[in-house]
Amino acid sequence: MWVRILGNGSGGPFRGRHYSAQVVHDRRHYFLVDCGEGAQEQLHRYEMPVDRIQQIFITHLHGDHVFGLLGLLTSYSLKNREQTLQLFSPPGLAAFVFDAARHCGIRFSFPLEFIEVGCEHSEHVFETKAIEVWTIPLRHGTPCVGWLFREKPRPRNIRPECIERYGLSFAQIRAIKEGADLILADERIVPNEELTLPAKPLRSYAYCSDTAPSEEVADVVRGVSLLYHEATFTSEHEKEAAEAFHSTARQAAEIASAAQAGQLLLGHFSGRYPDTTRHLCEAREIFPNTEVSVEGIEYAVGE
Amino acid sequence: MWVRILGNGSGGPFRGRHYSAQVVHDRRHYFLVDCGEGAQEQLHRYEMPVDRIQQIFITHLHGDHVFGLLGLLTSYSLKNREQTLQLFSPPGLAAFVFDAARHCGIRFSFPLEFIEVGCEHSEHVFETKAIEVWTIPLRHGTPCVGWLFREKPRPRNIRPECIERYGLSFAQIRAIKEGADLILADERIVPNEELTLPAKPLRSYAYCSDTAPSEEVADVVRGVSLLYHEATFTSEHEKEAAEAFHSTARQAAEIASAAQAGQLLLGHFSGRYPDTTRHLCEAREIFPNTEVSVEGIEYAVGE
Repeated sequence: MWVRILGNGSGGPFRGRHYSAQVVHDRRHYFLVDCGEGAQEQLHRYEMPVDRIQQIFITHLHGDHVFGLLGLLTSYSLKNREQTLQLFSPPGLAAFVFDAARHCGIRFSFPLEFIEVGCEHSEHVFETKAIEVWTIPLRHGTPCVGWLFREKPRPRNIRPECIERYGLSFAQIRAIKEGADLILADERIVPNEELTLPAKPLRSYAYCSDTAPSEEVADVVRGVSLLYHEATFTSEHEKEAAEAFHSTARQAAEIASAAQAGQLLLGHFSGRYPDTTRHLCEAREIFPNTEVSVEGIEYAVGE
Repeated sequence: MWVRILGNGSGGPFRGRHYSAQVVHDRRHYFLVDCGEGAQEQLHRYEMPVDRIQQIFITHLHGDHVFGLLGLLTSYSLKNREQTLQLFSPPGLAAFVFDAARHCGIRFSFPLEFIEVGCEHSEHVFETKAIEVWTIPLRHGTPCVGWLFREKPRPRNIRPECIERYGLSFAQIRAIKEGADLILADERIVPNEELTLPAKPLRSYAYCSDTAPSEEVADVVRGVSLLYHEATFTSEHEKEAAEAFHSTARQAAEIASAAQAGQLLLGHFSGRYPDTTRHLCEAREIFPNTEVSVEGIEYAVGE
């Protein structure tokens, strides 16, 4: 699982960082997560396969997270996209999109499926064969959810030498991968643990932007491999962060620590900080395995 | 008068050119003309004085001309702008903006004044001390106007040597600049032409995007110093241009020629043309003083 950062700036006047958007993928499925103004240009810049996106996950309806959606949907229509696009978000996104479409004469060439999610409890909302997606309730003064992408449990791996040793059939291999023991011709039983190796650990990615620090976030994302947590401010501006339902870098690190996350990635930086060294330093004091997100970089989840 | 091109691409998927937006100014007043997605970032990139903009002129409500507006207005509010912003456009812009504001929780910190213009006849809609602004009816299958910026007639310039020769007072100088003759103490009359030099020729700039070729455009902008005319396509795709109410570069040149424009600037290029050499060549065959607009460049009008 990978995440490509398209924008790690907060709202406010453009000051060099792009508005929130990122692509989470496993090289089969590409999910767009938030879609601030300019997401389309950033998708182009970093050569993301924009036409393979079938799901968009929006955290909330503030402009720095959705204003890029109108252009992207218009462009899909001008390319005569036919495939359904699913849009997951707190309530209100459909009205925003359809009102704008009406005023601006957008005729969608493809079905839009809006899935409204609640913001009170973590909900399972979507899955592929390999990944499931859950909401993360956030505290932002407006209905707002983060998104948790989790690999599904995978079958154990069969030990290659066992296939030849016992002359296993495909049906036997499938059953053993799913946990069965092997019964030999002489009725001896070979236990599953002798035939298989454990599957790789499950990786997970949590995207939390925007939010005041929240113990519930730590609970929901407990054990997450990679936590992207907003750090709009540094501790110097903690009061301002609280007033605006945002976090400082230190608070983000405290959440990562409480959640026993594998790694912390900071983002959603206020335009007042041209440099984010202070964010990094104050977070690493609490949670050493912290990085400051960089636009354009693709981060491997859990590696 | 100058025009800074922020985006010269047409609608459709982002392919390297930015969506329509430009800044017309005389170093006193800065007008934003169209506001496609990413205009805010382009204003920042080219260090335009974004807070000095008091008027925005929108040609029509297609996304590639207005989707940048929501982000810009939000940013003004987050900066606590207080000054009124006037927005000139065909009908519908206020509904687009206010519906989006309602869905996305934008609270404007400043008054917005929407001025709806008709699209049938050229209308005078705005003026400063030095510049007046007129609509240009365009043919685009949706209500659409271009914008004509014209310097107002200026007083003649007094010949510096006359001030000392005749010992002119301020009141006399002002009267002479406005056309009065000078009556000397002995009642001799010095005619105005002897005291003054003609004012510099009046400059004008016309922005015509998007439109099928239109004789009415040529009539309205007759004698314009600099004509920015859309050239979404080359002649090779003339049929497609007609179907979409767009122009080819050759047609843009024919309009410039019919209008006896001083110079032609081509723009609004379809993403299918990575290179615009052909646009330039076919336009120059008809109208030699043609340039292909370049994003980021500031063009002097009438020089």
